[in-house]
Amino acid sequence: MSEKKYVSYSSSNSCSTDLTKQITGCRFSLSPMCDDYISIILNALKHVDTSKVWSNTDTLSTVYRGKRVHVEDAVKALFINAYKKDVHMSLEATFSKGSPGDTEGESYLAEDDLLANELSIKDIHFPVECKIALYPLGDGNYMDIIPNVVNTAIDRGIYKESAHYCTFLQADVQSLFSYIDYVNEYCGSHLSHYVFEVTMAVNLPE
Amino acid sequence: MSEKKYVSYSSSNSCSTDLTKQITGCRFSLSPMCDDYISIILNALKHVDTSKVWSNTDTLSTVYRGKRVHVEDAVKALFINAYKKDVHMSLEATFSKGSPGDTEGESYLAEDDLLANELSIKDIHFPVECKIALYPLGDGNYMDIIPNVVNTAIDRGIYKESAHYCTFLQADVQSLFSYIDYVNEYCGSHLSHYVFEVTMAVNLPE
Repeated sequence: MSEKKYVSYSSSNSCSTDLTKQITGCRFSLSPMCDDYISIILNALKHVDTSKVWSNTDTLSTVYRGKRVHVEDAVKALFINAYKKDVHMSLEATFSKGSPGDTEGESYLAEDDLLANELSIKDIHFPVECKIALYPLGDGNYMDIIPNVVNTAIDRGIYKESAHYCTFLQADVQSLFSYIDYVNEYCGSHLSHYVFEVTMAVNLPE
Repeated sequence: MSEKKYVSYSSSNSCSTDLTKQITGCRFSLSPMCDDYISIILNALKHVDTSKVWSNTDTLSTVYRGKRVHVEDAVKALFINAYKKDVHMSLEATFSKGSPGDTEGESYLAEDDLLANELSIKDIHFPVECKIALYPLGDGNYMDIIPNVVNTAIDRGIYKESAHYCTFLQADVQSLFSYIDYVNEYCGSHLSHYVFEVTMAVNLPE
C-alpha cells in the first residue's frame, strides 16, 4: 500500500533563497464571455512576447514569472491583445512575491529592463472596471499597509469605492497597469510576502 | 476646494465587534463563456433562495454575508443553478471572515441552521476543476496552516497538484462544496482573519 504524499511549506523545509525572493509572479485566468472564447484566449496568449518571463499554461490559468516589470508587461500585453470592442471579458490575476515556499526554478531573472511588449501596446486605450484586494502575509500590521495602497488609487483619480472584501477602481487600461506596477513595487519593497488580487473587466453590459 | 476622503482600516478606527467576527462573507463573479452569459447569470442569481443571507450585486460581482453555512449554501446554489451541460463557465469566489475593518451591518446572523437551498441541489452532480489559495492574515505561522488544508484535500481524494500560487483540485461539485465548508469551518475557528480564494470551472475545452 503506497503512502500518501503530503505537502509541507514550513520554513524549515523551504527552498526559498535570496534569489527566489526577487521573483514576481502572476497567475491569471481570462474569461471572454462569448461563444468564440477559445480563439480569443489562444490568440491573445500567442501574441504576447514572453521571451523575458517564464510561462506555463494549464487548463484553468496561465502563470508568468520573472522580474516585476517583465511580468507586468506580459500580463498587460495579454489583456490588451485579448480586448475586442464588443466582447465582455474579465481577467482574474493574482500577483505575488516572496512566498517562503517558493522555488528558485521556473523563472527568468537575468534580464535587462527593456520591456518586450510595451512599444506595441502603449497607445491603446479603453476603460476598465476593476476590483482589487491586497493580502500582506505574515505581517501583524497588515491593516495599516492596505490603506496606503488604496489611498494612492484615490490620489491617482482611479478609485471608485470601497466594499466588503475589495476596493473598486475605474481607470483607463494604461493608468490601471501603471497603478498595478506601483502596488507591486511598493509591496515588493515593503513586505516580505504579499498577494495582490486584481479582477479587471471590460465592456460590461448595461 | 474639497479635501480628499482617504480610507483607514487600522484597528484603532475599527468598527469590528464580537458579533462582526462571526460574519462569513463570499464575493464572487460568475463567467459563463458564451454569447448568452447575461441570462445565465441573471437566471442563476434569481433562483437562489437568499432569505438567510445579506446579498448585494454590483456590475462586477455579488456578495453574500451571514452565517457560514448559509453563505456556502447560497453560493453552491448559485453555481449549480448556473450550470449548463455544454457551457464552459468559471466562478471566482473569495470567502472571508474576521477582517478587523469589517462592519456589523449588511449581514444576517440571527438564523437557524436549516439550509434554504440544499434540498433542491443535493442530488445534482458534475465534475469541477478548481484552484484554491488560502491567505491567513496577521499570523506569523501562516505557512504551517496552509498545508493542513491542502493535506485534507489529499485525504479526501480531490487533490490534483500543487503549483505556483495555488493548489489544483478535481472533484464532484458536492465533494467540492463539502471541502469548502471544511476549510471555512477550520479557518474560521483557528484564525482571527483569513481569505480563501476559490476558482472553479466546468466543461473545459479539450
